[in-house]
Amino acid sequence: MSASLSALRPELVCTLSLYRWNTVAHDSSTKIASKLLVAVQVSSMLLRHCASTSKLPLTIRQLLSSLQTVGQETKVQVNGWIKSVRRQKNVTFVVINDGSCASGLQAVLKPDITPHNLSNGTSVRFCGGLVKSLGRGQTYELQVEAVDVLGECNPEAYPIQKQALPVEFLRDNAHLRARTDINAAMLRLRDSVLRTIHSYFETQGFLYVHTPILTSNDCEGGGETFRVLPSSSPPLEQSPGSNSHAEFFSQPAYLTVSSQLHLEALTASMSRVYTLSPCFRAERSQTNRHLAEFWMLEAEWAFISHVGDVCHVVEESLKNVLAQCQSENLLLWKDGDEAKLNSLEDAARPGHAWTRMTYTDAVKELEKHHASARVGFEFEPTWGRALQSEHERWLSERLVGGPVFVTDYPTSLKPFYMRANDDGRTVACFDLLVPFIGELAGGSLREERLPQLVQAIHRHGLREEEYGWYVDLRKYGSAPHGGYGLGFERLISWMSGIENVRECIAVPRWAKRMLL
Amino acid sequence: MSASLSALRPELVCTLSLYRWNTVAHDSSTKIASKLLVAVQVSSMLLRHCASTSKLPLTIRQLLSSLQTVGQETKVQVNGWIKSVRRQKNVTFVVINDGSCASGLQAVLKPDITPHNLSNGTSVRFCGGLVKSLGRGQTYELQVEAVDVLGECNPEAYPIQKQALPVEFLRDNAHLRARTDINAAMLRLRDSVLRTIHSYFETQGFLYVHTPILTSNDCEGGGETFRVLPSSSPPLEQSPGSNSHAEFFSQPAYLTVSSQLHLEALTASMSRVYTLSPCFRAERSQTNRHLAEFWMLEAEWAFISHVGDVCHVVEESLKNVLAQCQSENLLLWKDGDEAKLNSLEDAARPGHAWTRMTYTDAVKELEKHHASARVGFEFEPTWGRALQSEHERWLSERLVGGPVFVTDYPTSLKPFYMRANDDGRTVACFDLLVPFIGELAGGSLREERLPQLVQAIHRHGLREEEYGWYVDLRKYGSAPHGGYGLGFERLISWMSGIENVRECIAVPRWAKRMLL
Repeated sequence: MSASLSALRPELVCTLSLYRWNTVAHDSSTKIASKLLVAVQVSSMLLRHCASTSKLPLTIRQLLSSLQTVGQETKVQVNGWIKSVRRQKNVTFVVINDGSCASGLQAVLKPDITPHNLSNGTSVRFCGGLVKSLGRGQTYELQVEAVDVLGECNPEAYPIQKQALPVEFLRDNAHLRARTDINAAMLRLRDSVLRTIHSYFETQGFLYVHTPILTSNDCEGGGETFRVLPSSSPPLEQSPGSNSHAEFFSQPAYLTVSSQLHLEALTASMSRVYTLSPCFRAERSQTNRHLAEFWMLEAEWAFISHVGDVCHVVEESLKNVLAQCQSENLLLWKDGDEAKLNSLEDAARPGHAWTRMTYTDAVKELEKHHASARVGFEFEPTWGRALQSEHERWLSERLVGGPVFVTDYPTSLKPFYMRANDDGRTVACFDLLVPFIGELAGGSLREERLPQLVQAIHRHGLREEEYGWYVDLRKYGSAPHGGYGLGFERLISWMSGIENVRECIAVPRWAKRMLL
Repeated sequence: MSASLSALRPELVCTLSLYRWNTVAHDSSTKIASKLLVAVQVSSMLLRHCASTSKLPLTIRQLLSSLQTVGQETKVQVNGWIKSVRRQKNVTFVVINDGSCASGLQAVLKPDITPHNLSNGTSVRFCGGLVKSLGRGQTYELQVEAVDVLGECNPEAYPIQKQALPVEFLRDNAHLRARTDINAAMLRLRDSVLRTIHSYFETQGFLYVHTPILTSNDCEGGGETFRVLPSSSPPLEQSPGSNSHAEFFSQPAYLTVSSQLHLEALTASMSRVYTLSPCFRAERSQTNRHLAEFWMLEAEWAFISHVGDVCHVVEESLKNVLAQCQSENLLLWKDGDEAKLNSLEDAARPGHAWTRMTYTDAVKELEKHHASARVGFEFEPTWGRALQSEHERWLSERLVGGPVFVTDYPTSLKPFYMRANDDGRTVACFDLLVPFIGELAGGSLREERLPQLVQAIHRHGLREEEYGWYVDLRKYGSAPHGGYGLGFERLISWMSGIENVRECIAVPRWAKRMLL
């Protein structure tokens, strides 16, 4: 810390908020009372901060949100990285940000305290007075009294320049990517969505659980899973599927592709559970919707009898997220596609109940369009065949113009664990299709009836012994239940308008690519 | 649903809380006003539930917490699993639980509606009136009017009997383990601790981020990491370390042992970040403190200059957790070790500042004890050598009698990234040792000075090229920063008194063992 800085008496600087509260309390005017009430309501976050006796200084976000309530000049310490420098004859304007908010803070430096080595990316500590700004674009600015350059940043060599950088260049510089405004806003959006999800499920009586990442269960087709071996094991002579002496767990271990079966085991005692878990697919195709490592929200709960009840929770939780996580999106949509933004805002409208239609009805609509349109689909839509990407997008973007739950798919298209409908040819399931994304979530009632489940295992050519524990859940106090999984990066993509899921996660992994 | 049950008019049953609120509102007596105020305060959870228009019925926990405010008889529907059945001549007492709370709910059934197939583990739906209980042990009980057996449970075959079951037996029945009271309480404790941690870091301005599980970084010794390969790859002919054609990511992929380096990259833009992430070690030794797959809380933040500031956040966040997550512990400590419980409660005392001492002072104390005690340590304590488990436990359990931060270890004992102290032989780090557990958390300032970091990389015999991106963070706007990691299962073990971390996670994985 420089001498000039320590002269500012750090205890004064660090206790900004306490100081300001005392000032308010000493004023005996009654006008202050109502001001105080507002202050109490608005700055509960700040109060909790003070009450905790934490030694952490306030972030720029905390500083700015506290200033909305009480506005006199205050001495503060601000840490962060320089986002821009504008030198004028008698003054230098510097925007500094610490990642806590989109805008950062404008700082004003007089020539006598302005070091020569301030440039984009430099890490600094500024001390000074926060005052109402006379300039445009910001409400407050920092009149800097002392500067401490913590870490220089050579402007010639620094890869993160002010102008927009190509997406591929940023992927190559994954370790510096969070320094761009867009990527930082995406990280804040993730945080805000995660907290809203946790809060929603807490309110609904769900338990937040952790399910295993390593599993013996290779349940959705061996071709797209990852095998796990201890690094120190001798070279494998047998094929990867064999039970060699190298098996750390006495049997082959895979990375999970879904936590669902494990969640079902917990549901059979805790009633309502959910998890946010990394999932893995050795997907070799290069699309803007797939990652080798991604995060899934999966929820499972007991004592429901209709697939519509699962859809209801999906819709309600997502509308909650859409309503509560809009502030970060202002930056992300600044240059975004207006049609996409309108569609998102429309989906978020409280009065807008998302469409539900059966697979059978969806296929009828697709067939009708295919037969009558001048340019039909590449793949002919037919009952019994999987919906293609082009079909899914047409349904949500053209037919419905919003999110749509497609329910009750043919049994043959879906995994063994989905509950059979009475018609004998469909299962009680849904896919949630949203505009410009396609499938965002999928779920179902699970087959809770023992004979039907065993039959389905055989019909899918699976070995009953491998699912012994799963079948057990139906032997001892089975209960009707259901659940769903939602791709977290796809949700972020939908909400932010960021096209590729590779830009919707801090450090992405896909085939042929693993930096850091 | 049985005919008797649907006769109860489900819309009445499901809107319990709205019905009760209306009743209160129609009473014009002024006494009601204060009652209402209390009700508003206490049942905000319930209100949020109603406001959300959710179709989920109330859990037993939600029901019971709503009854503390308004007590008249109410028709309700309760779903769950039977915990015990006590048949008397004119009445049958059944305890039912849905996993939402420790106690469950006592239900009273008249002979004419009591099915023959009610036994421990049976899944049921009861409808009836909630009334004040005249019996001991519960405040409310359910006067059952209709019974729906959803899933039978053969009492002869059901592995989860009422009496205490051996821990090994429950490990073998991992899929049914959550049905025991203790395991269910542990799962609720995890949930409650997780939420408190999230809330603490939110208040402190930290961003919740996800760091990668798959990494190219084999940073803490190749012997204890896991390798990852696509299942579909051809048999490996080369050794696992080679860059064979089977490399899905064009280079070897490992499971993460720590998120720290990735968190540092994000800290260099977002200032304060934390994650809760699965971590993996191919640890072959069988101890009660190690799992092959475990969860770690890791936090990292910028603009701090003292390792004591890191300790402060660790202590503050843990005291928060200890203070706010006590309700589940009543059940877990019922038959627990009183000395352990006292020690835990003492650590939680708000006025109790946890001891901090340097490694150098700790070794002096150990040497003194070793020289003077009748029975010394198995391993002689000497400056420069790692502390053994017996040393760590003696320090926290005997010398300090509580949690202790041991700081400033010799440079040679710690990883390359810890910040060098001015004495030239120690680093600015800490281990948090707690009674009966040993090391619970560890952290440090990180070396933010470029020349010192590069030197440390070489001194540790690492290849600088492999850490190019990490070194970059020091080239462009480096800032002083630090952080820590905390073993989540060890925290649960400490708080619950459950001795082995295998019982502190839903589905544990360790060498030779991977069920489900």
